[in-house]
Amino acid sequence: MKKVAIIMGSASDLPVVEKAAKTLKEFGVPHEVHVYSAHRTPDQAHAFVASARENGFGVIIGAAGMAAHLAGVLAAGTTLPVIGIPMKSSTFTNGLDALLATVQMPSGIPVATVAVDGAVNAALLACEILAVGDDDLAAKLAARRAADTAKVLAANAEVEAKYNC
Amino acid sequence: MKKVAIIMGSASDLPVVEKAAKTLKEFGVPHEVHVYSAHRTPDQAHAFVASARENGFGVIIGAAGMAAHLAGVLAAGTTLPVIGIPMKSSTFTNGLDALLATVQMPSGIPVATVAVDGAVNAALLACEILAVGDDDLAAKLAARRAADTAKVLAANAEVEAKYNC
Amino acid sequence: MKKVAIIMGSASDLPVVEKAAKTLKEFGVPHEVHVYSAHRTPDQAHAFVASARENGFGVIIGAAGMAAHLAGVLAAGTTLPVIGIPMKSSTFTNGLDALLATVQMPSGIPVATVAVDGAVNAALLACEILAVGDDDLAAKLAARRAADTAKVLAANAEVEAKYNC
Amino acid sequence: MKKVAIIMGSASDLPVVEKAAKTLKEFGVPHEVHVYSAHRTPDQAHAFVASARENGFGVIIGAAGMAAHLAGVLAAGTTLPVIGIPMKSSTFTNGLDALLATVQMPSGIPVATVAVDGAVNAALLACEILAVGDDDLAAKLAARRAADTAKVLAANAEVEAKYNC
Amino acid sequence: MKKVAIIMGSASDLPVVEKAAKTLKEFGVPHEVHVYSAHRTPDQAHAFVASARENGFGVIIGAAGMAAHLAGVLAAGTTLPVIGIPMKSSTFTNGLDALLATVQMPSGIPVATVAVDGAVNAALLACEILAVGDDDLAAKLAARRAADTAKVLAANAEVEAKYNC
Amino acid sequence: MKKVAIIMGSASDLPVVEKAAKTLKEFGVPHEVHVYSAHRTPDQAHAFVASARENGFGVIIGAAGMAAHLAGVLAAGTTLPVIGIPMKSSTFTNGLDALLATVQMPSGIPVATVAVDGAVNAALLACEILAVGDDDLAAKLAARRAADTAKVLAANAEVEAKYNC
Amino acid sequence: MKKVAIIMGSASDLPVVEKAAKTLKEFGVPHEVHVYSAHRTPDQAHAFVASARENGFGVIIGAAGMAAHLAGVLAAGTTLPVIGIPMKSSTFTNGLDALLATVQMPSGIPVATVAVDGAVNAALLACEILAVGDDDLAAKLAARRAADTAKVLAANAEVEAKYNC
Amino acid sequence: MKKVAIIMGSASDLPVVEKAAKTLKEFGVPHEVHVYSAHRTPDQAHAFVASARENGFGVIIGAAGMAAHLAGVLAAGTTLPVIGIPMKSSTFTNGLDALLATVQMPSGIPVATVAVDGAVNAALLACEILAVGDDDLAAKLAARRAADTAKVLAANAEVEAKYNC
Repeated sequence: MKKVAIIMGSASDLPVVEKAAKTLKEFGVPHEVHVYSAHRTPDQAHAFVASARENGFGVIIGAAGMAAHLAGVLAAGTTLPVIGIPMKSSTFTNGLDALLATVQMPSGIPVATVAVDGAVNAALLACEILAVGDDDLAAKLAARRAADTAKVLAANAEVEAKYNC
Repeated sequence: MKKVAIIMGSASDLPVVEKAAKTLKEFGVPHEVHVYSAHRTPDQAHAFVASARENGFGVIIGAAGMAAHLAGVLAAGTTLPVIGIPMKSSTFTNGLDALLATVQMPSGIPVATVAVDGAVNAALLACEILAVGDDDLAAKLAARRAADTAKVLAANAEVEAKYNC
Repeated sequence: MKKVAIIMGSASDLPVVEKAAKTLKEFGVPHEVHVYSAHRTPDQAHAFVASARENGFGVIIGAAGMAAHLAGVLAAGTTLPVIGIPMKSSTFTNGLDALLATVQMPSGIPVATVAVDGAVNAALLACEILAVGDDDLAAKLAARRAADTAKVLAANAEVEAKYNC
Repeated sequence: MKKVAIIMGSASDLPVVEKAAKTLKEFGVPHEVHVYSAHRTPDQAHAFVASARENGFGVIIGAAGMAAHLAGVLAAGTTLPVIGIPMKSSTFTNGLDALLATVQMPSGIPVATVAVDGAVNAALLACEILAVGDDDLAAKLAARRAADTAKVLAANAEVEAKYNC
Repeated sequence: MKKVAIIMGSASDLPVVEKAAKTLKEFGVPHEVHVYSAHRTPDQAHAFVASARENGFGVIIGAAGMAAHLAGVLAAGTTLPVIGIPMKSSTFTNGLDALLATVQMPSGIPVATVAVDGAVNAALLACEILAVGDDDLAAKLAARRAADTAKVLAANAEVEAKYNC
Repeated sequence: MKKVAIIMGSASDLPVVEKAAKTLKEFGVPHEVHVYSAHRTPDQAHAFVASARENGFGVIIGAAGMAAHLAGVLAAGTTLPVIGIPMKSSTFTNGLDALLATVQMPSGIPVATVAVDGAVNAALLACEILAVGDDDLAAKLAARRAADTAKVLAANAEVEAKYNC
Repeated sequence: MKKVAIIMGSASDLPVVEKAAKTLKEFGVPHEVHVYSAHRTPDQAHAFVASARENGFGVIIGAAGMAAHLAGVLAAGTTLPVIGIPMKSSTFTNGLDALLATVQMPSGIPVATVAVDGAVNAALLACEILAVGDDDLAAKLAARRAADTAKVLAANAEVEAKYNC
Repeated sequence: MKKVAIIMGSASDLPVVEKAAKTLKEFGVPHEVHVYSAHRTPDQAHAFVASARENGFGVIIGAAGMAAHLAGVLAAGTTLPVIGIPMKSSTFTNGLDALLATVQMPSGIPVATVAVDGAVNAALLACEILAVGDDDLAAKLAARRAADTAKVLAANAEVEAKYNC
């Protein structure tokens, strides 16, 4: 199976981003986690994506905050699908800066942007992409959806029991 | 090759969305274009995505404006990757309503969001996803990038000739 | 009397949403509380609203956060009045994402949107709707207004006593 | 049948607001149209809503722009359901000022807010409210939904014929 | 001397608003503090401003949050200068809703808006207005400015001593 | 009578700002119009406000766009009431930059901010301030309000005749 | 004298950006104009800034729109001062996306950001930077300021003649 | 070497702003720290910048919050490069007010704006400006960049060791 690379712009993003790694692990999807900054280690970031396809990667996840250039910079260096996670920083408390800096990519270089701090969804999207040609993984995704549905229905049953008696 | 479905919420979105179809055509990627509204034809929208995988689709693109629920509603009905195009409407002139309504999906149901009115990038992202397991398509994407680079360099040459003599 | 359905997208919305149930209880308005997610349990959400009118419901309240599609999805499945409560999430700390995703509905499918986290007002609006044809309920609403007025006047008296002596 | 009052803050709102009147006419719902400003004719606005219920009104629609107080002021004077239409003005070109001034009502006085410039939806919501106790009107609403669905399907057929041959 | 009325929409605004009263007290400006809600006690609010000029008031301060109609409603009922304080609420955590609902008044009914939670400035502005025809009060304002300047210069001296040695 | 100074940051603001002069003329309030930039002619701006009170001015109006510092800079140099008009510029098309730069003044230096491009209201507010000690001017303001009310009622009559026959 | 490099992300930025070149020409500051995209020609962009200092450049200006990464990417490759011009695009009509993507740089890699579409100020800032060690250029800047002041005073004289007679 | 002046609008800005002083100290750049308010001590602020160049300063840093006029006011009084730090205040919790009030300067008077609370970057930018004509300082900046890169690579090594074993 192709691997997923999770790249964060700063080690301080780890508490949110590690949920992506955890989710990929649950799906048995091989992955690597790296800290490469678009601005502080641009050479390493470029080198990584330049050889990502030949190194067996299928999807790249880039997570960064503020003027979040990481996902766009990664996308500029590969035609693999790049998923962007806008990270909420301590200044713009709603993450609008990171969201706009990640999603508003110019024509030619798309970044598949998920919600602010949306690390789990970034991992699920990576799985969905790999599952286009992998029925086993697709089945796991369907099972996860069913489990999510079951959780909501269980919560619903609990709430109904409390309020609708 | 898997097909791409382009679904728009209203036929009035066509002038922007048809750029996605045109881009897919350039890449020789089989695709269908549909008008299904999340609110006015929810049954058709659900029926379409429910059978999309078995009908040979690999990626779904959903384009909608205002309280843009279409991509999210499509994503709720399939584990295929769903790409969302937030459409700029006549009221919120920057498309912020559609952007937030498309990208801020809850955990479990990702939508790969591109820029406001980003139809070309939605198509390119679809190609990138299909190219994960398709080296020919990957080569076409690389060629397109090279062509884009050449265009910028040509523009640069023209500007340099004018200003830097 | 017609019933009111309170539907929340996630059980985590309960601390805010239960104020709607409490308010309806104060007015003696029959109601049910459910957890149905637009994305995780779309079938249950659709099934509920599809039969809501024949099952004796007069008003539907939908509460959701982030890309808050729930109220719109419910509204797409019924011509009963649907009230939307945009829920403030942990990311967009002012709830602007949920507000825009709830209120900016396209022509044809209205959602009666109340303030961010406005669960009490959602319940009062439901009562007002049912009271259009119910003079007893209208009288209770008038009494509540009078009580609210009295509370403000009492607070005013206290403040006046402290500052205007 | 109860009547619907459409009140706009300024005659300049008429080009948008008259769509509400036109929609109510299509549904055969009796209605009146008035220009009452929350600030320039507060007495008339108050007098109107104070006697609205006894004068046979069932729903009030208030449309205003900028610091749009009209719907809230009307809601303060009646326990009839009040629907607010935030009007886009020439200054805040996205109508965010009117939207927030209309929807963010304090607890106790709800305003059922529709989208910016959403006059048609305001009228449809008024019909939905009156239809809670009126099966004929409910049937008309269902027919309108079916017609809207048919329009989307027709547009879809046209688009499919053009793109999916 | 003319009096200043400080009117807040809710007693919960008191912790911020009482700074206005404290400031007026420091300047020896006679004032009253009231709690009148634009929506819950509109009659009292109207009655107050309708007779404010004849009752010896020269300036009205209105403080409210969310869809902050209070200052505008007061301004609609008098031609005395009305100062609006937009209050930050628990939902829109930056007070943007209250700011826009206070400042974006339509032509004809101005509200002199100060910063979000700007109670001290509201009181100072009231003093400035009264001081247009009152040289003693003008002298007190000048003294306050001089004291503020002195405070900054003292802070500057302390910082300079620490950093510029 | 005290005079009103209207100061704009750029002559390009004149088409909007001259409405303030026109309004003051209608009220017979003596006034001057000046172009002083906070950044390009700071000395002239400071000199003007430093002597404004002794030169017979009672109110200062400052109009500027973008990072609109003018009103704040004027307010820093006088304890006369300063009214700020945030001007909509060609870039931030809703004037939010000018609004925030005008209204969010720090404690100690208030600016009485009116709506974006709100030149008429700035003039009316100036009149209201001068009318605190001038019954004739207060009477003119009351007459203007009555005329505004009459205009709305006339518009209402026209609309009623057209729609409510 | 050190040279200034003006780099724009797309030739479509030229109508705004050429004002920077024109301003530098007026000051006799040697400069070059280039079109290098952060995403479409990242290698050329990196190569340019990597050797910019040794090639005699003193300041780099980067102009880009949407998720405007260009200035940040240039700043990552040099310790020369980099000035960023956020360009207004056709989608986010106020340029907020470009502004946040340019200015919100993480600690370590500053970008000196000017106003949206602020090409003239970018050039002036470049001149100011070069003038720190160049008294002739500083004198030219002072002359320009004096000329700007004179223009405002001339406009003021014209306005005064018209309004204050 | 030319000196850097760090000027803050209020001593309460010190906890953020002192990072700028600390950074300049690390680079051995002579600097002064002052508290001058654009509004409370305008004379001192003007006097300081008017003589800054002749007093040996090469760069001015201005830090202020809310309607942050300080950097612009300083820039109006000198042609030295002025760097603006928008400070996050307690009301607008994302600092958007200060950002727009600092960066949106009119043509003619640039302010080199860094991120909200970006004190370290303001100092680094000042160093970059002084380093244009100072190879030793340029070498120190390059060393800092290398150290920053090394820190990221060390963090990366740690993360890789934990996740990619």
